[in-house]
Amino acid sequence: MPGCQEAVAQRLSRRGLFKGAAGAAALAAFSAAPVGGAFAAPVSFTRVVDLTHVLDPAFPTFFGKPQLEVRKLFTFDKDGFNLNEWVVNEHTGTHLDTPFHFSKDGPSADALAIENLVVPLVVIDVSAKAGGNPDYQVTAADIVAYEAVNGAVPPGAAVALYSGWEKHLGTDMFRNADAAGTMHFPGFHPDVSAVLAEKGVSGVVVDTLSLDHGASKDFGFHYKWLGSGRWGVEAAANLGTLPPKGATLVVGGPKIKGASGGPSRVLALV
Amino acid sequence: MPGCQEAVAQRLSRRGLFKGAAGAAALAAFSAAPVGGAFAAPVSFTRVVDLTHVLDPAFPTFFGKPQLEVRKLFTFDKDGFNLNEWVVNEHTGTHLDTPFHFSKDGPSADALAIENLVVPLVVIDVSAKAGGNPDYQVTAADIVAYEAVNGAVPPGAAVALYSGWEKHLGTDMFRNADAAGTMHFPGFHPDVSAVLAEKGVSGVVVDTLSLDHGASKDFGFHYKWLGSGRWGVEAAANLGTLPPKGATLVVGGPKIKGASGGPSRVLALV
Repeated sequence: MPGCQEAVAQRLSRRGLFKGAAGAAALAAFSAAPVGGAFAAPVSFTRVVDLTHVLDPAFPTFFGKPQLEVRKLFTFDKDGFNLNEWVVNEHTGTHLDTPFHFSKDGPSADALAIENLVVPLVVIDVSAKAGGNPDYQVTAADIVAYEAVNGAVPPGAAVALYSGWEKHLGTDMFRNADAAGTMHFPGFHPDVSAVLAEKGVSGVVVDTLSLDHGASKDFGFHYKWLGSGRWGVEAAANLGTLPPKGATLVVGGPKIKGASGGPSRVLALV
Repeated sequence: MPGCQEAVAQRLSRRGLFKGAAGAAALAAFSAAPVGGAFAAPVSFTRVVDLTHVLDPAFPTFFGKPQLEVRKLFTFDKDGFNLNEWVVNEHTGTHLDTPFHFSKDGPSADALAIENLVVPLVVIDVSAKAGGNPDYQVTAADIVAYEAVNGAVPPGAAVALYSGWEKHLGTDMFRNADAAGTMHFPGFHPDVSAVLAEKGVSGVVVDTLSLDHGASKDFGFHYKWLGSGRWGVEAAANLGTLPPKGATLVVGGPKIKGASGGPSRVLALV
């Protein structure tokens, strides 16, 4: 389908939503949309990749303690059907960080427009650097290097950091806490927030437990990025299976009123 | 993009996943897929429609009592960031019903293959009938009437029942319980389960609180449909804005181990 291939390239401009959008102008798109938005050119895909980890009470957490309890309220053997309730921290498993997480009154999960959660996906591979330096922080130079090979990051896109950290899941290396309790895993440098915002990027995705690197003492990227009205996804799966450009991210975030984020179903349409 | 229009039509055959799939044979596709599946022909869309209601503790429930509590664990003013935990019943708001909900050992939310949650969407409008009869049950005749106008329900599709019940949200009419507590809203007749299964349908979607009609005393459709390894979505929004065919449903269900279902982000790509 050559026509669709071209459409994939064309939609990267997202003219309908993001014409001229850059920096703060892009924020206008973050108002709540009750139904949804239109793309200027067709988006096309032939496969779906699940970027979501299975979540159970043992899934590692930023705070280091379990953040999910599954309580059986009804069971098939006793009641004829199965039904549980969850006690769950909003920032558990593969999950959404909303602007409200690190701002006084930014949009919460119910207020993010759906057209900002279905967006072109850019994947920046820093796994080689992060493999040699667990404290690695993505900088503006990494964005420049990406664009030199792949072309400009399209306005409205999500930018995913593929650090390769997923391979440590199930071991202490995923949190990689030292004797003092400081964690060591890669993340976004706070200074790159303004660089991505200037390009009109909607959100960022990491395969670790935090948008900031584990050793951050001040949540510098969180405050700048989420505080500017943008979103993040943490603990994504399977980023290493994706092309550097051309996929469409679907962030199936919770639509719970006032939520600062929450476990999400995150997909890539490729 | 005429090529993409054709692709939309072609993908309805879903040859890659569902060639010859009918009845029980389609169940083979319900095994867990860790990464994702491929479509035989490109799927194309130009807009996204959010089929998810905003969920708050006042959202109506099947059991009639609140099923969501949002507990503030950290607040921006006091702690520098906002973070809540939820106590939430799996069957609250716009949510997924898995086979495990009404079977002893069917697939739970973490075990549904992602390619069965991104599928062609058929919308059957029975709002006129349901408007005059709150106890209306969709029958095989409604499927026949749909296909006479729109062509065959494609294998692998989701079939949505648009009853128009959404307009009652925010009033007692949404549950429409009588003096004895019996609810009165439309749903799928139990006999239609076999009809849809024979066509290889993956899941069903309703805009009410139950796959069965409200007055059901035996969860007849639930047992047959979910018990056969298929899924449902309840309390969907905005079905009335969709075309009868041509859209793609994305069920952003929770990937929580052992979940019988859960609040989900449900979208249509049109």
